[in-house]
Order: sequence, then C-alpha cells, then structure tokens
Amino acid sequence: MATVNAEIVAIGSELLLGQIVDTNSAWMAQRLAEIGVNLFYKTIVGDNAGRMREIISRALERSDVVITSGGIGPTEDDLTREIVAEVTGRELVLDADLLQQIEERFRKRGFIMTKNNEKQAYIPSGAIPVENPNGTAPSFIVEDPRGVIIALPGVPFEMKWLFENRVIPYLRDKFDLREMIVSRVLKIAEIGESSVDDRIGHLIRTSVNPTVGVLAHPGQVDVRISVKTDSVETAQRLIAPLEEEVRQAFGPHLFAVDNETMEEVVGRLLNTKGVTIAVIEDLTGGMIAKRLQQAARESLAEAIIAHSEQPLRRVLRYSRQPERLEELLHDDAALTEELAFSIRAHSQAGLGLAVRAIPDPTRTTQNLSPGKTYMAVADDQGVHTREYNFAGRGTPDLTRITTYALNLVRRTLEGTL
Amino acid sequence: MATVNAEIVAIGSELLLGQIVDTNSAWMAQRLAEIGVNLFYKTIVGDNAGRMREIISRALERSDVVITSGGIGPTEDDLTREIVAEVTGRELVLDADLLQQIEERFRKRGFIMTKNNEKQAYIPSGAIPVENPNGTAPSFIVEDPRGVIIALPGVPFEMKWLFENRVIPYLRDKFDLREMIVSRVLKIAEIGESSVDDRIGHLIRTSVNPTVGVLAHPGQVDVRISVKTDSVETAQRLIAPLEEEVRQAFGPHLFAVDNETMEEVVGRLLNTKGVTIAVIEDLTGGMIAKRLQQAARESLAEAIIAHSEQPLRRVLRYSRQPERLEELLHDDAALTEELAFSIRAHSQAGLGLAVRAIPDPTRTTQNLSPGKTYMAVADDQGVHTREYNFAGRGTPDLTRITTYALNLVRRTLEGTL
Repeated sequence: MATVNAEIVAIGSELLLGQIVDTNSAWMAQRLAEIGVNLFYKTIVGDNAGRMREIISRALERSDVVITSGGIGPTEDDLTREIVAEVTGRELVLDADLLQQIEERFRKRGFIMTKNNEKQAYIPSGAIPVENPNGTAPSFIVEDPRGVIIALPGVPFEMKWLFENRVIPYLRDKFDLREMIVSRVLKIAEIGESSVDDRIGHLIRTSVNPTVGVLAHPGQVDVRISVKTDSVETAQRLIAPLEEEVRQAFGPHLFAVDNETMEEVVGRLLNTKGVTIAVIEDLTGGMIAKRLQQAARESLAEAIIAHSEQPLRRVLRYSRQPERLEELLHDDAALTEELAFSIRAHSQAGLGLAVRAIPDPTRTTQNLSPGKTYMAVADDQGVHTREYNFAGRGTPDLTRITTYALNLVRRTLEGTL
Repeated sequence: MATVNAEIVAIGSELLLGQIVDTNSAWMAQRLAEIGVNLFYKTIVGDNAGRMREIISRALERSDVVITSGGIGPTEDDLTREIVAEVTGRELVLDADLLQQIEERFRKRGFIMTKNNEKQAYIPSGAIPVENPNGTAPSFIVEDPRGVIIALPGVPFEMKWLFENRVIPYLRDKFDLREMIVSRVLKIAEIGESSVDDRIGHLIRTSVNPTVGVLAHPGQVDVRISVKTDSVETAQRLIAPLEEEVRQAFGPHLFAVDNETMEEVVGRLLNTKGVTIAVIEDLTGGMIAKRLQQAARESLAEAIIAHSEQPLRRVLRYSRQPERLEELLHDDAALTEELAFSIRAHSQAGLGLAVRAIPDPTRTTQNLSPGKTYMAVADDQGVHTREYNFAGRGTPDLTRITTYALNLVRRTLEGTL
C-alpha cells in the first residue's frame, strides 16, 4: 500500500476575513484519515492570483495530492481554474459535456443561463472533468507529474457529495488505497472522564490497533475504538473483543453506539413501549423538551417550563399529598419527586419527569458550577429520584442536566435502575 | 500609516485530523481586519518539527507578522518554542519571571507543579515574554529582522484574552497603526434579504467608506455599516447619517443594534415595563421558552409545549368562547388566537404568546419549508395575530418562527404594531 500525503487549500477572502469558519477542511480531514491518507497541511488563502499561485505551487511540490475548495464559481473573483491551469502549464479548454450539463441544469430550473456561467465549463487541458449534480460549478482533477490537484467547490453540501462519491473512489483507485479506518463509538453517561480512565485506562494506554480513545462532553463520555485495516470484516473482528470489554466495564451506563444520541435512544424506547412522557423543568428552560421533541415528537404529551410557584401549585393539585403542599414548596428534593408524580397524572402520560436545578447564586463557572439539581421520573411503579451537587446557567451545565435527566428516563424504561 | 501583512499559523495535529474546527483563526482574522492589518494566509500544521519549521520560515519570509497559536503547552508534542527559537537562530533561555508566575499559579490552586511545566518558562533569547493570566502557558514575541513572530496558546479563552490585551496594543504601537475599522450592526426582523436590498440597495452599492453590507440569518437580516478611520469619533460621525437612513428605511422592523439579541430586547422591555409573559408553543418545542428564559428568566411566568389536544383543552378552559371549543380545535388561526388569550389568563401573566406551526407533511426543505404558522400575542388590549406560509422542522425554519414570535412580542410591548 502506498503512503499518500495530501494537503488542503481552502480558497476565499471571506474565510480570511473571519466571516466564515472553514468547517469543510475538518470534515475532509476526517474522511482522508479514514481512508489512510495523511494530511499534513491546510492553508487558507484569499481570492488573489499571486498568493493562490504561490500556495498551490508550493503544495504541489511537497504533497502527493492537493485538494482545493472554493473559487470555481462563475464570478470574476473565482480564480481557481485559471491558477491551476497556469501552475500546471496548461491552457483552459471548453469541455462540451460540462457545458451541456450546466445548460441542462439551468433549463430544468427555468433559469436563464448568463454568459459568465459558461466559464465554469472550462477546465485545464487534459484534466479529468467531474460533474457536480448539486450545483453549477463542475469540479476537475489535474494529474500533474508533481502530484494530483483536485478542485472542489466551497459550498459544503456540494463539496461533501463530490468528495464522498468522486474523490474518495478516485483516490482509492489511483493510489491503490486498501487501508481504511473503521471506528466504533460507545457512549457513556453519568461517569466522568477520570472514572472512565479508572475503568478502561489500561485499554487506552496499551491498545495499538485498534486504539481506544476518550472524548468528554458535558454529561457524556465517548469511547472510540478505531482500527486501521483493509476490510470492514477484519475491522469488526478486531473491534469486537474490545467493545465487549468496554461494555462490561460500563454496563447500563453505556447508552448508545456510533451516531445515536441520548434523545434518540429515549425516543426509540418510548415508541417501542408505546409510552408517552410529560415533563416539568425549570433552569433547563425547554432544553429537555426540545431534545425529546426532536426525537420523540409523538411521545411527548406535554412539557411545562416553570420557575414560579403558581404553575407548580397547579400541577401539584394532582399530588399524592395535597395536605403537604406548602411544605413541599420549601423542600426541593421532595417537591421534585412529587412534581414527577403530579405531572404524570396531570398530563395522563405514561411517565412523568421533573427536573429542578438551583444554582449557587454566589459562584458560577463555565462548567460544573456549584448548586443542587434534583430530578425524578414517575412511572406506574413509583418515583425514581437523583440528586447532584452542581447547577449552572452555562450551556455545559444545562446540557449535562438535560442528558442526565434523559438518561434517568432511559434507565427507567429499560428497567436498569 | 504602515501597511502590515500578517499571517496565522495554527498548530496541532488534532486540527489536521478534523477533531477540532479551527475557530480561533476566524476570530483573529476579524480583529486584525478591525485594526487595519491585512491577513493573507492561514495555515494549519500538525505537531511535527520539520513541517512546523518549513511553515514558520516561509511565513516569516512573506509576512510582516506571523501569529502562531498552539503548541506552547508543557507536553512532549508541544514544539512551538523550540521551532521558533530554531527558525530565528536563538537559544531557549529560562525566564525567571515567567517561571515564578507559573509556580505562583500552581501554588494558588493547590496543585503540584511537575517538572514538564518548567519547560513553559523557556522562551527564545531576546524574546519579549508575555504573561498569560488565564493559563500556565506564557506567550512570547520574537522580533526577527525578517518579521515579528507572536506565539499564542491554542486554548480559545486564553488566546482571545492575550490577543485583545497584549497583541493588539503591541501591534498598534510597533507598527504605528492608527487605522481602525468601526462597525455598527443594525438588526432587522421580518424583512427578507431581497426586500432589504430594495430599500437600501443604493447604499450597499454606492457606499465606499463607510461601506454597507448585509448578512441574512433565519428571520433576521443584519445591516453592517463599517468605516475605516483613525478615531472612534470620526467613525461615529461618518456612520451616523447612514445609520439614520437605514433606521428610516426600516422603522419598527429595526429591533436591535450591535450585539443585542431579539430575546434581550424583549427581556429588557418586559423588565422595564414589569410585565410577565406566558407561552404556549408546539413545533418550536421549547425554543421560544429557552430564548426568553436566557434573557428574561424572571419575566417568564410559564411555558407549555403541547401538540396534543388534552393540554390545549386544559388551557382553553380560560377561553372567551368555551362553547366554541370543539370548533376551535379544528381552526388553527382561531385556535392560536384563543390560546394566546387563554394562556395569559391561565398563567395570570401580563402577556400571552401562542405559536402553532403546521408543516406541510409532503414537502420539506432545509429552509423555508411550506406549511402554515400562526402566532398571537394577547395583552390587556386584545389579541394581535400573524400568519405565515412556512413551517419546517429544520433549525432554520424553527429559528425563524421563534424570532418572528419574539418580534411580535416586542412590537406589542413597544406599541408599534
């Protein structure tokens, strides 16, 4: 297998002015890593002929593959075609097929094609034309003796489609890339990064291929098992025993695999069991509702966001202990438990979830601010509660609270509490 | 005034692997533009000595100022100090003040300082040390005959503080930069980008200094008036007449200036007038509540997220027309109006906001999907309603609906409906 070194050149003055963050490059970087191509440099350059010429020439000298994005549109400041032709010592020539494709696209949409769109049908002589079914800017590949230049559009949606469907097959074929990186991501809730290290630190430190890595998010830790290999079957065979070990280490804390989110898992469980849920939240101000809504719209009977006593009193009319009402309003733990019971009855839902978070007003930090968070889930068996010693108004804390609450719902539904 | 050309070199393999998106560079780019420094290149390179050497040397040849970020931490793979020293032909020397500052930082936090942290007190001989009050990695500036290298940490919070408080004053002083870019952003709601162009297109096309530009977001268009000048007073004098013209063109559609958000404006109005608000929303699933909660926590009496009939029936017990209940449930426009009235009474709030969005199930697009959205605000005068012919489940549509709903609240409170 060949060793292939690539670099990315993102073109556009708007990227240099900071008006747009270059997310394309990070995406391409991941896909290149997955097919075993090394990425050593990413450069951003404005729509300036001299500087583009300098960067693309230099890139071609030091790398096997240069992937440009941007600068292939119809307007005056789109210079990529011209510069690539110049740098590789070629003329720009009209590609009749590309012209027809562009004309077709305009015709289909009922738009008039202006003269400057023709420009996009010109590519460096001898270049491989790459039709772009999602936009008017066709792409092209120049095989220069010094290396390959692949010119892609800057529009993320168009770039990604072409990268996935044209560039990766081209690179695999051209450089005989049989290597690939296959990953399995195992998602863990309610266990901090350091406890994850306690349980599987030996895997993180000793595993070579597959490697085991950890990435922490608020309320969630991702364990990634990655293997470099030449077939999906081998990858799966190598990942399986490590995955089993990680599953053993975390038991019911492991809530999802790969791209699945916590709310999707909860949504799936609610849906499978035909159970609805009603929510009452305060500091999270709709974050729990929003995530449930995205994943389980039909199962969300109702959500109430309430800080003040009046709506709480209304919900507590369904309490098991109406005589303790005034007392409850001054005991957050008991109140949360009773709210979970009451919101379930109030909304006639299968599950009731209540979350109350009370920040410490004297101290806040960006993450894990002191405070108290209470949460409770009521089902037909009773009420399950949790207490935490943090509650902050910042997004990390609110995300953590939301994830923990959804996790409590998940474990209630799974019967793994 | 000097012309100063800068470039940014972001260092870190995690950036090349696509695990982190380089948002630092976009932020720096904006700040450099504001002080009149040209940014021509941004390069990302991994933690590799050879490639870092190549990139930093090349940068120093072609630019007046090279700003690096990342690679100045305590670990083995942090190579920026070494490479900058090497490229500028200097030794690394211990800076006693920096060492003391690092030790102090560890002492204060009650942490043990390990040997590798000492490494961070070494800087190239003759470099200007720059203390980092927000982290353990001090920064430094090397004035080489070919140009200036400024080495910053990669942690965004630390980098931004140093950039603002150390780098910009240094650059202004060193290069006698008196030029600055001052901007005023005027935010417009409920008017599309093309209508904005209709009203102020002449300003966009003819203004030179100040320039007038437009940036569209879902439900909101920002008009930016930017002027390049040498004093804040001159800037304000030049911006004022254009700002006045834009204000005239948009009247009550202009809802905020510079960094203020729609929810902050609404929060401020609710707060000033001592008015509370209750919300009932459906498809937006908590987005309206979340934005109000962030900006006007004390003024949000209650929010209910409800799709199904049962919670609607409960709220509609406060309807003005209880006899029409069944009919209302089948007439979305009338239902929304009555829900606004009812939620206000139900929650005993000063304002009631109801939003119902019904997507067209047959067609969805990423933005502006077909469908119907109804919204209504009730106050002590009556109910104010709006209808729109879009409703999608995607974030752009939901953001647009949320912004329009908050805008209706704003105009109700301002009395500009």
